[in-house]
Amino acid sequence: MLARQACSCSRQLAAVAVSGVSRGLRAPLLPGGTRLAIGCTRSFSQSRHRRSVAAPDVDRAASKVWKSADEAVSDINSGSVILSSGFGLCGVASTLITALRNRGPESLHSLTVVSNNAGAEGRGGLALLTENGQVDRMIMSFLGSNKKLERQYLTGKIAVELCPQGTLAERIRAAGSGIPAFFTPTGGNTLVQQGAIPVRFDADGNVVEYGRPRETRIFNGRTYLMETALPGDVAILRAWKVDKAGNCVFRYTTKSFAPLMAKAAKLAIVEAENVVEVGEIDPNDVDLPGIFVDRIVPATEPSQIEVLKTRSAGDDGKAVKSKGDAQVRRDRIARRAAKELKQGYYVNLGVGIPTLAPSFLPPGQQVWIQSENGILGMGDYPLPDQVDPDIINAGKETTTLVPGAATFDSSESFGMIRGGHVDVSILGALQVSAAGDLANYMIPGKVFKGMGGAMDLVSNPDNTKIVVATEHVAKDGTSKIVQTCTLPLTGARVVSTIITDLCVFQVDRKHGTLTLTEIAPGVEAEEVKNKTDAAFTVAEDLKLME
Amino acid sequence: MLARQACSCSRQLAAVAVSGVSRGLRAPLLPGGTRLAIGCTRSFSQSRHRRSVAAPDVDRAASKVWKSADEAVSDINSGSVILSSGFGLCGVASTLITALRNRGPESLHSLTVVSNNAGAEGRGGLALLTENGQVDRMIMSFLGSNKKLERQYLTGKIAVELCPQGTLAERIRAAGSGIPAFFTPTGGNTLVQQGAIPVRFDADGNVVEYGRPRETRIFNGRTYLMETALPGDVAILRAWKVDKAGNCVFRYTTKSFAPLMAKAAKLAIVEAENVVEVGEIDPNDVDLPGIFVDRIVPATEPSQIEVLKTRSAGDDGKAVKSKGDAQVRRDRIARRAAKELKQGYYVNLGVGIPTLAPSFLPPGQQVWIQSENGILGMGDYPLPDQVDPDIINAGKETTTLVPGAATFDSSESFGMIRGGHVDVSILGALQVSAAGDLANYMIPGKVFKGMGGAMDLVSNPDNTKIVVATEHVAKDGTSKIVQTCTLPLTGARVVSTIITDLCVFQVDRKHGTLTLTEIAPGVEAEEVKNKTDAAFTVAEDLKLME
Repeated sequence: MLARQACSCSRQLAAVAVSGVSRGLRAPLLPGGTRLAIGCTRSFSQSRHRRSVAAPDVDRAASKVWKSADEAVSDINSGSVILSSGFGLCGVASTLITALRNRGPESLHSLTVVSNNAGAEGRGGLALLTENGQVDRMIMSFLGSNKKLERQYLTGKIAVELCPQGTLAERIRAAGSGIPAFFTPTGGNTLVQQGAIPVRFDADGNVVEYGRPRETRIFNGRTYLMETALPGDVAILRAWKVDKAGNCVFRYTTKSFAPLMAKAAKLAIVEAENVVEVGEIDPNDVDLPGIFVDRIVPATEPSQIEVLKTRSAGDDGKAVKSKGDAQVRRDRIARRAAKELKQGYYVNLGVGIPTLAPSFLPPGQQVWIQSENGILGMGDYPLPDQVDPDIINAGKETTTLVPGAATFDSSESFGMIRGGHVDVSILGALQVSAAGDLANYMIPGKVFKGMGGAMDLVSNPDNTKIVVATEHVAKDGTSKIVQTCTLPLTGARVVSTIITDLCVFQVDRKHGTLTLTEIAPGVEAEEVKNKTDAAFTVAEDLKLME
Repeated sequence: MLARQACSCSRQLAAVAVSGVSRGLRAPLLPGGTRLAIGCTRSFSQSRHRRSVAAPDVDRAASKVWKSADEAVSDINSGSVILSSGFGLCGVASTLITALRNRGPESLHSLTVVSNNAGAEGRGGLALLTENGQVDRMIMSFLGSNKKLERQYLTGKIAVELCPQGTLAERIRAAGSGIPAFFTPTGGNTLVQQGAIPVRFDADGNVVEYGRPRETRIFNGRTYLMETALPGDVAILRAWKVDKAGNCVFRYTTKSFAPLMAKAAKLAIVEAENVVEVGEIDPNDVDLPGIFVDRIVPATEPSQIEVLKTRSAGDDGKAVKSKGDAQVRRDRIARRAAKELKQGYYVNLGVGIPTLAPSFLPPGQQVWIQSENGILGMGDYPLPDQVDPDIINAGKETTTLVPGAATFDSSESFGMIRGGHVDVSILGALQVSAAGDLANYMIPGKVFKGMGGAMDLVSNPDNTKIVVATEHVAKDGTSKIVQTCTLPLTGARVVSTIITDLCVFQVDRKHGTLTLTEIAPGVEAEEVKNKTDAAFTVAEDLKLME
């Protein structure tokens, strides 16, 4: 049983596994009737899963080319920590995962799997292993809509450690490059910092393990979390072209996690779509040098597309503007959001309404769209004959690249985001507070999908303007604009501008106050007041929202 | 005046600039008759140069293409922190440096320049600026043989902060990616940790500023230093191909620091050998996405070669084995060192004797040579018609790549090194102790070139075997094998095997003891004993060194 104590921590040193008493907890309800601890708590369980089994030996003199995936995974031990590449089903090592699945749960079990996602239920990716009862723990940023996994999590079959996407990438990179720990702004003032997200339940739905509270430290007046390296025993990856010395080339968005993971594992196995002779790859084109690759097997499973999206040839890529009430409201928000996107800006757009904004840009105005999975310069959905499973967006949908685009791995992508290089990030919200606090990733008791990259996207609000684009009230009629968020935060004091179907607020993040600066045609200030659960002042020069 | 205090520190929190008394110091002599502080000291001056001036504004809507380097540097302010790309003269932004020099010391002065090297005296690189009196401070890993700069340093004209090469790369990467600090093993138990290398002298040669002592912390039983991000106001870089959106492609070893520096600066200016239209670069080939590049100018200065080395067509690349006594000794060491290089190994070889080792490999045996400036798979010196200024080794000499080679930037290269992915690293030594302590970068009072990558190369001795290959005694007849090093350490308890012209010692790094395991033909154990200033035991199965 795991001891758990309340504390007033701002710093916490090494935590150790202990046996001891558990204490009763009172906290919001999570799915399964359990309670979510909010506030500063300290878990002593963090080292518990840091078991590591001996990885198979690497013989430098032997050929790296193995006959089959089955052969190459035959000596992997139960209890291993597996780093599994890809984003969604893009770049996933399907052949190797199938081979691990074929080992069966008696031969290979109790795996800890580190991956951005959990695969698609009944279709592919890591779902093959979780559904087969071979996985004990997952460390990931986004479960998505994997209902079977959620059920396994809530009934104690599988532990889930949620980790923000950029932090996940950076922790894996650190492990490969001899860095035991680093500081990041991502996750500050959230349940991640507090270690308050349940990791493991028992069969009755009681929480038996929580996340690890993060030590914090102030640099230049800002609070950062200390995050530790995340190494693995075995990395499994898929590459487009691999020479027999192990040099790998990845196409487009397949490179998100693969190069990072190969470096962080004791043994790296790559499935190659094409195996070529040594010397056939230009030294400038190598994405992952052969030193990091130990075994090469042929990829025999096809590339999969998680969400096929296309546009028709007559479609100019603009959103269809039907005249339904909801669509009118969404268009109004998106049209106003488009004004935040100035000529030449680098922007990141969340799913939903934010994605519609570029369709309202004036002709000739160009912005560069960043997609967290590793694109700068994302385009429209592809025409049917343009579909490429190696080019997907952050929603795992097929997409295209504009001329001048670049693709890169996840540590690059989140370095770009966390470093404040993106000019504007437009996100949706579940709640946004008068001080600019944003909640948009979790509803205890209802939604437990993971934060993905959301916490990273709001981690540098002084350099990347955070704009919320959302309907003013939720479907249940409650205001999304609140004095204080009651839902778990994505970030604190991060939002600068709030755009709704009724109005625009500017947030004074320093003083924690809201000012109504624009109002939609036909809307009165009184209506805004009635539908807003936060105090605000009205600007002297209140403008009409176009 | 800067306060300075002795301390018993293992940890140190934020340091601040203070005015106060200076205390007398007693320490070994440095060049210029000054004293080098050895041991744990604490400087309160670390924030002193953290002045930062406003960088010129970036207008996202404006064209990134500027007419000339002169125009693009015209608004850079005195006192700016300049990040200057390249390794040696390879990849250096010569056109931009010339333009900065042409501003003249009245218009542009008091610069802090961050760069791996200081340029070549009277020839190019940053020497143009230091010789012109425009630089107040340099942050670098290696001065090399820049005598003018050394004189400016010793007479208080220019401050020099030495920083291990991998730490320099990682600090710059951190600055660009929103990471305020990280932990690294590099520099542990050295003057870097202690903050004991003089940074600034006065005109009389007295030390007025020391390095910054590093906070240390133990992870998994090892000691690591906390290093902080190193941002800049302006980055100057040179690229092979740049599109008008700023996407950059770098050839071979020119990419060492450029992509890292562009991301870490408020304003990044690239000189392009070729400017192309948007869309002409494949998204997979972009080394530095356009989001990080603000101004593009044509490169008008030619690429420079710092050390031209070639082999003749009849030369098989093997070392010439003349019969001089010194050469016989060197060959014996190199021949034995070659036995450490097993088939398929990834190895890093220091300059001098270690470089000779591959010439003694049996036919058909291949090792992959890592060069810290960003090569895996380095070959021989080029034939005269193969010379490429964009392919150099860690000694800044022209070199070649073998089939299957890869090139990469310095954060990748030192991640590879620090992460323990290299199998064997063979280095020279000034002194090596019975416990495996290595001193090979500095002789107070005589040699002050900088540590370059040496501290990184020995930072992971459990995963990368550290072999010293050296003559047994120095030119002055003193033993290089000592009980305790008196010279500043490169690393503590790092060396596993010592190969000299007389014998081979195996080091027990845990217990701090030496065992004589092999002896050269014609050498008696007594001679080894007489010429070794350290205690050792003789192996029961003492072997003959082949």
